[in-house]
Amino acid sequence: MTTYGILIFDGAEELDIVGPWEVFTFSSRRRDRVDTAVLIAQNLDPVKCNQGMRVLPDHTFDDHPPLDVLLVPGGAHSRIEALMADPAVLDWIKRTAAQSDWATSVCTGAFLMHAAGPSRGRRVATERPLEDELEARGDITVVRDARYVVDGNLLSSQGVSAGIDMALWLIGRLHGRDHARDVMSGIQYEPAPPYLADEPL
Amino acid sequence: MTTYGILIFDGAEELDIVGPWEVFTFSSRRRDRVDTAVLIAQNLDPVKCNQGMRVLPDHTFDDHPPLDVLLVPGGAHSRIEALMADPAVLDWIKRTAAQSDWATSVCTGAFLMHAAGPSRGRRVATERPLEDELEARGDITVVRDARYVVDGNLLSSQGVSAGIDMALWLIGRLHGRDHARDVMSGIQYEPAPPYLADEPL
Repeated sequence: MTTYGILIFDGAEELDIVGPWEVFTFSSRRRDRVDTAVLIAQNLDPVKCNQGMRVLPDHTFDDHPPLDVLLVPGGAHSRIEALMADPAVLDWIKRTAAQSDWATSVCTGAFLMHAAGPSRGRRVATERPLEDELEARGDITVVRDARYVVDGNLLSSQGVSAGIDMALWLIGRLHGRDHARDVMSGIQYEPAPPYLADEPL
Repeated sequence: MTTYGILIFDGAEELDIVGPWEVFTFSSRRRDRVDTAVLIAQNLDPVKCNQGMRVLPDHTFDDHPPLDVLLVPGGAHSRIEALMADPAVLDWIKRTAAQSDWATSVCTGAFLMHAAGPSRGRRVATERPLEDELEARGDITVVRDARYVVDGNLLSSQGVSAGIDMALWLIGRLHGRDHARDVMSGIQYEPAPPYLADEPL
């Protein structure tokens, strides 16, 4: 039984959240629903994500089950900056990461993991345009050109869609490769990005 | 200016909705936010998606802007069956598809498109395990082994994650290949599915 907790906040990027959410919950469905995934926010008000989708949190910082996996998404730069100056958020991330088996982030969620402490002295991935900016903050190594980076129990991915690959890797690590492959098959994760070639219309 | 409308309902699959949503909204962001994407439901109550995420609709069937693109997601089989027997839903899909430039579906959304009429006599994609079942309903051709299928202004994709590729194709068709490539770069859509090989742990 694995409990996944995803932090959500105003300005969080929708696919940073829902890519891993779909992987974790579909994984549970293929395991007789023994796992749990929850969305955690500072309070129970609807969260307005970066592109305008409004999502209801399941739990608050003070009232959520113990987590095996913490996931911190990225989002609007202005909101990430604001959260990096919010002691309640940083304290929760630091405390919850320490109590979880895995501390994970997608995209600019890596900035929150750095501000809160868990990624100090570690190797991480983040959104490509902000790799230099994250490294300039000090006491962190940003790995370029890796879709996701595993450093001990710290797991981080590049931008937005990369959270899907990271989450698939994690369920394979937790529950086996065959299970991860079964989930990939279930969500038909056989990507076919368009326009990789230039051909006549 | 393109207006995208995504149908949401209890039991809709989260990534069916949010994959295209992220693509459409990120596309608008790269176009000075001239486009609009909205979530449309039968009423304004929170929608509980198939894996438990609760999302707030932006509009109801009776109160939404004219759409250029309609998207119908898939979801829990029991819910899809129920919607296929709901005249209000079928009538809205039929009417809205007729008034839109593009009628699109992800996964088992293709069953709703068939029940409502827009895909009768056309070629479509759907979730792999249900291809035979959809074709058995008659007056429709299910294309196997195509990530998404374009038949006139009817666009349909395979299961869950395939909606991302379909949406990327559509924004390229609407706003140019270079734009679609820019959006792919922005959401770092360079998929790297894990466990495609078997190597020592």
